[in-house]
Amino acid sequence: MEYKKQIEQLIVDFRTNYLSSVSIDFVIFGFHDGQLKVLLLRWKETDKWCLPGGRVRHEENLETAAYRSLQERTGLSEIFLEQFHTFGDVLRYTHFSKEETMGTLGLPQDVLDGFPGRDVSVGYYALVEFARVTPTPDLFTDECQWWDIDQIPLLLFDHNAMITLALKTLRRQLSYQPIGYNLLPEKFTMPDLQQLYETILGQTLDRRNFQKRILGYDILDRLDERKTGGAHKAPYLYRFNKEKYEKALKGEVLFVG
Amino acid sequence: MEYKKQIEQLIVDFRTNYLSSVSIDFVIFGFHDGQLKVLLLRWKETDKWCLPGGRVRHEENLETAAYRSLQERTGLSEIFLEQFHTFGDVLRYTHFSKEETMGTLGLPQDVLDGFPGRDVSVGYYALVEFARVTPTPDLFTDECQWWDIDQIPLLLFDHNAMITLALKTLRRQLSYQPIGYNLLPEKFTMPDLQQLYETILGQTLDRRNFQKRILGYDILDRLDERKTGGAHKAPYLYRFNKEKYEKALKGEVLFVG
Repeated sequence: MEYKKQIEQLIVDFRTNYLSSVSIDFVIFGFHDGQLKVLLLRWKETDKWCLPGGRVRHEENLETAAYRSLQERTGLSEIFLEQFHTFGDVLRYTHFSKEETMGTLGLPQDVLDGFPGRDVSVGYYALVEFARVTPTPDLFTDECQWWDIDQIPLLLFDHNAMITLALKTLRRQLSYQPIGYNLLPEKFTMPDLQQLYETILGQTLDRRNFQKRILGYDILDRLDERKTGGAHKAPYLYRFNKEKYEKALKGEVLFVG
Repeated sequence: MEYKKQIEQLIVDFRTNYLSSVSIDFVIFGFHDGQLKVLLLRWKETDKWCLPGGRVRHEENLETAAYRSLQERTGLSEIFLEQFHTFGDVLRYTHFSKEETMGTLGLPQDVLDGFPGRDVSVGYYALVEFARVTPTPDLFTDECQWWDIDQIPLLLFDHNAMITLALKTLRRQLSYQPIGYNLLPEKFTMPDLQQLYETILGQTLDRRNFQKRILGYDILDRLDERKTGGAHKAPYLYRFNKEKYEKALKGEVLFVG
C-alpha cells in the first residue's frame, strides 16, 4: 500500500537525519469576527484529530525546523510563531494509549526500535485571521479543520493540554504586548478591537476601561472618519500606528508602578 | 587522573541512560536587600563560568529531571522552577568555540561519537532569597558563586543569552503574577516591596502608583503595627495574605479592560 510504504521511508529518513528525542507541535489559533478556533489535522484514514507537528534535522536550528514543519504539514507560511512551552512527560498520552496511538498512526511496531519511544516536544503557537489563510493537508492528513475553541474533541497525545496552555499564554500576552495587527481590517472601530480582546479572553470587558487602557498604550491613530452605514452615533475609525506598535512589541508593557 | 576517569564513566552513563539531544539549564536569580544576582558555576580546573545544567533520563519526566539535576549540580532543592524557553540553535557557542568549550570541559574528543554533538536545551529559572540558600559545588565544579546581574562574565555556550531572556521573562511576570513570597521577611513595609520590584525591573518606580497598583491586587494584609527603630513617620507593616496570594498566582492578573 502506497501510504504505508511512504511512511516506512519517512521513518528511515527520520532515523538518519533527525534528532531522535525532540519533536515540535503547533497550536495555531484562528480569529475571525468574534470566533476563536484552533487548527486540527485528522490523521490519514482515521477519525482521530491532533495538532500539526514536526521534527528537527541534525543540522537545523529549532526555530527553522518549526517554520519548515508548519509549512510541510499545513502549507502555512509567513506566520509569526511564538514558543510557549516544552512538554516532557515520559507518557504524553492523555486520551488514547500509546498502543492505540501507534495503531492509529499506522506506524509499524518496530518504529520504536530506532527511537527511544519518547519525545520531548517544543510547543509553538500563533494567532492568525483564519479567513485569510487556507491550510492544505499533507501526506499524513485527510483534512485540516478550524475547530471552535469550546468544541475541541479528544486529541491524540497530550494535545488537549497543549491547547489549554497555549491559550493561557496567549491570554497572558494581552497584559504585556499589543495585539491585533494582521487580525483586524486596516481601519477598525474601538468595538472591533474590544471584540478581539473579549474573544481571546472569553469574557466581556468594560467598554470605558478598555478604551482608556488601550489608548494608554499609545499605539493607535484615530482617523478623521467614522464608520459609515451604521446607525446614528457611528463610531470613530482607528488604525494601528505601525511604528509605535512595533516599539511597544519590543519594549513590552511591563509593570508600571 | 581521578576526575578524568569519573568524567569518562559519566559519559558512558549518559550514552546509556539519558536522552541524547536534550539538556536542561538553570538561571537561578538571587535577590537580597536591593541586589539581584545569578548563580554561576566555575568549571573544574578552569577559569570558565557557566550556568548549572543537566540531562534527562529515558524514563524520567522533564520536570523531574530539572529538579534532580539542579540538586545534583548545586545542592539546591525546594526551589520553584519555571520553564521559560528552549534553546535550539545548532551552534550554541556564543563566546567560546565548540573546540574551546570541549577542551575547557576536559571532555575527550570521542565524546562526540556517541552524541549528535548538539543539544536542544530547556531553560528553567527561579528567584530565591540568596542569603537563605547555600549552593554546593558538584564533581564538575570548583565553585558556585552569586554574580551581580550587571557583572556577568562571558559564559560558556549561549548562557549569557539565556540569562538575558530569563530576566526578560521574570520582568514580564511582574505584569501578571504577584511576586515576593519567600523573598521578603514575613512582615515588610511598602518601600521594601517596592525595592524588590525596582531591583528586578532595574528602574525606579513612582511610589504612589506602585502602592495603588499593588494594593489593587488585594494580596496584602496591612498590620496594626509600624516599623520600629526608624525616624518619625514610620511606615506600616504588611504581610502577604497567603490565601489571596495563591489565588492570584493561579488566576493571574490578566488584561483588565
